[in-house]
Amino acid sequence: MSFKIKNARDFVDQEVIMEGWMYNRRGSGKIYFMQLRDGTGFMQGIVTEDESGKESMEQAEKLTAETSLRVTGKISQHPKKEDTFEMIVTKIEPVQIPAEEYPISKKEHGPDFLLDNRHLWLRSGKQWAIQRVRNTIINATYEYFADNDFIKIDSPILTPNACEGTTELFEINYFDDDTAYLSQSGQLYLEAAVMSHGRVFDFGPVFRAEKSKTRRHLTEFWMMDAEMAYCDHKMSMEIQEGLMMNIIKRVLEKNMKELAILERDVEPLKKIQGPFIRKTHAEVVAELREMGSDIGEKDDLGADDETMLTKKYDLPIFVEKYPAEVKAFYMKRDPENEGLALCCDLLAPEGYGEIIGGSEREDNLDIILKRIEEHKLDPKVFDWYLDLRKYGSVPHSGFGYGLERITGWITGTHHIRETIPFPRLINRLRP
Amino acid sequence: MSFKIKNARDFVDQEVIMEGWMYNRRGSGKIYFMQLRDGTGFMQGIVTEDESGKESMEQAEKLTAETSLRVTGKISQHPKKEDTFEMIVTKIEPVQIPAEEYPISKKEHGPDFLLDNRHLWLRSGKQWAIQRVRNTIINATYEYFADNDFIKIDSPILTPNACEGTTELFEINYFDDDTAYLSQSGQLYLEAAVMSHGRVFDFGPVFRAEKSKTRRHLTEFWMMDAEMAYCDHKMSMEIQEGLMMNIIKRVLEKNMKELAILERDVEPLKKIQGPFIRKTHAEVVAELREMGSDIGEKDDLGADDETMLTKKYDLPIFVEKYPAEVKAFYMKRDPENEGLALCCDLLAPEGYGEIIGGSEREDNLDIILKRIEEHKLDPKVFDWYLDLRKYGSVPHSGFGYGLERITGWITGTHHIRETIPFPRLINRLRP
Repeated sequence: MSFKIKNARDFVDQEVIMEGWMYNRRGSGKIYFMQLRDGTGFMQGIVTEDESGKESMEQAEKLTAETSLRVTGKISQHPKKEDTFEMIVTKIEPVQIPAEEYPISKKEHGPDFLLDNRHLWLRSGKQWAIQRVRNTIINATYEYFADNDFIKIDSPILTPNACEGTTELFEINYFDDDTAYLSQSGQLYLEAAVMSHGRVFDFGPVFRAEKSKTRRHLTEFWMMDAEMAYCDHKMSMEIQEGLMMNIIKRVLEKNMKELAILERDVEPLKKIQGPFIRKTHAEVVAELREMGSDIGEKDDLGADDETMLTKKYDLPIFVEKYPAEVKAFYMKRDPENEGLALCCDLLAPEGYGEIIGGSEREDNLDIILKRIEEHKLDPKVFDWYLDLRKYGSVPHSGFGYGLERITGWITGTHHIRETIPFPRLINRLRP
Repeated sequence: MSFKIKNARDFVDQEVIMEGWMYNRRGSGKIYFMQLRDGTGFMQGIVTEDESGKESMEQAEKLTAETSLRVTGKISQHPKKEDTFEMIVTKIEPVQIPAEEYPISKKEHGPDFLLDNRHLWLRSGKQWAIQRVRNTIINATYEYFADNDFIKIDSPILTPNACEGTTELFEINYFDDDTAYLSQSGQLYLEAAVMSHGRVFDFGPVFRAEKSKTRRHLTEFWMMDAEMAYCDHKMSMEIQEGLMMNIIKRVLEKNMKELAILERDVEPLKKIQGPFIRKTHAEVVAELREMGSDIGEKDDLGADDETMLTKKYDLPIFVEKYPAEVKAFYMKRDPENEGLALCCDLLAPEGYGEIIGGSEREDNLDIILKRIEEHKLDPKVFDWYLDLRKYGSVPHSGFGYGLERITGWITGTHHIRETIPFPRLINRLRP
């Protein structure tokens, strides 16, 4: 078994070779503390003349940040900190000492500089930690779906039509002067697949040519869509809850060190358990007005509303049954109140806000044709989608989450651009 | 626990409700055999007046293909076939009986008709089975990487530059008259991420605006790229082998029914074990010439060459060390022979051919600058990529696989368009 920093506990008192990079170094002529990293974690390497020899001392002195190197030494537990391990260095073999000073130092850099150097910024402790939490969220999602009879159906990115209007779409010249658009959601395709497989999900990039410059917008981001046949609005919320619980459980199991690097208070995450809070849109509007909001009866929750509401409770909140007229054509109406859609948004606590949106889908051909007309959409565009209501239609529901928003909430990251490896913004396409 | 066909074994002699569709029906006035499906599998439902009652007989008679329905009945083991279960139907509740005849019947349909109706064709037995095998391949890939310290790094789809030339790229008008291209590979981005995380992979759609109309080309397909720091060409091949072994193991564990539906002979898959065959390009050229090929010393293997070679052996074949001059600029040269690249293609057996391509990457700044010049590429485009050789460069390797090609091989599917849910071809962007 080769040595990895994350497994240091298993190597106490053993001599190992760490292959990685020197993140930083402090100390003077008598002792050097090298902060080492190997991709799986960070560890301190201690260099003294007594333990490490003269040659190592000389090496340690001349190494600069981001030197790649192999370091040999003995692993020991930190005298004061539990679950922290150090290496008493016996040999340093540089692989490459940068000829130029590493551009990212400990001092404050502006966001443009950091984003221009995203290919290097990814190595910084917090950026490293965010990506590892993101990875856990991805794996916990796959795990939950595999355990619950979902299969992955990759919906297409190149699509002939817009799902909900053509604004905010990136357009491509396809062959023979055909026009293609980059997908904003795989939902309609999953509705086809669910009639074959019962339960499906996709998980891929989606695109919005939106001219918004907020901390919650990216032009390219990763979205997970799930769709379930023979599943109503209520069952769908239970699945959403199960998925979120699995994600939080796995992050708390696997990423305590990452969350510590991010200075994320984990107590609010530990408090989360099912069942989540369920409130109707009407209840939420009334509650928000009491709290001072000027939200209207048919309004979506504004960013301030979401913040106010989600700071009030420890648990995520399902906001159900929005006024149907402000929601998408494919949403089924509430049989108890035709004016409401059987939909829900899931709001994350601590002021974070919306992370999931979902609904039961209208499964009746005549009704959905009427909705398409009401929404002034072109029924021809939905030809194949309507087939799903002609041949063995069934009650079905689905929901979608934005990976960057969930990562932002769980890692406590203010701006969503840090939650994706290479952010694409209205003014940023590089590196 | 609710009933799913794939778990029928656990419900023998129990009364259950199946929620799904009637795939087909045969029989006459005395007995009906309904072929039922619920997304997780197929099962026969037997309807007789004695066991099912008069009402069920009337229902069974009038149901047409792709009726959605709930069927109540008792599960029993098939009298002759092991691992096959049936339902003695006691109640039939149609959800929707199609008003129009289902367009896809048992008779032969042309490929254009089937592709036009891809949203329905996905329900056919073989198409269902292919997607389930594809799903297993996806999950086995995530599993292998999680078990081997890789994390997922989503490389961007919208990219400012071409990795290897601008032909075959889809172009997009980004904001403010900037031009973006759809990614053909995430490799260069993973090379940045690997310096932070040690081992990373991506798995997402890539795009080729190639005017090829062969059974092995799609304009949009799913690609997995893996990249490893402190990893040479030889170690990379071992990882590729481990990944492929895990994929085959999981498919043979989970998808025997699907492979039976596909009439896939599983014996060749069962024979596969490590170590795979390793041959140099020069050895392969000599071997192929002896077999009658006119392949030149610097030629890539043609489709016929791959077929001929891979039919000769039971195991996958690594073809290593191609002449460097015909390979990409970023490939490291063989220290034992500067004219060769430290690269490999993995060829699947049974005549299938290439499924993985990989190489060790050139990690020296001066050498890679020389290669960029030799390949007449613009060094400015590679600014950030060159930074990776300036600051703590390390030996690193990577490889990529095409999901549809692997799925095609394992499922024995002739045309790659059936291995992706919604294929995009030069003349097909719909549904």
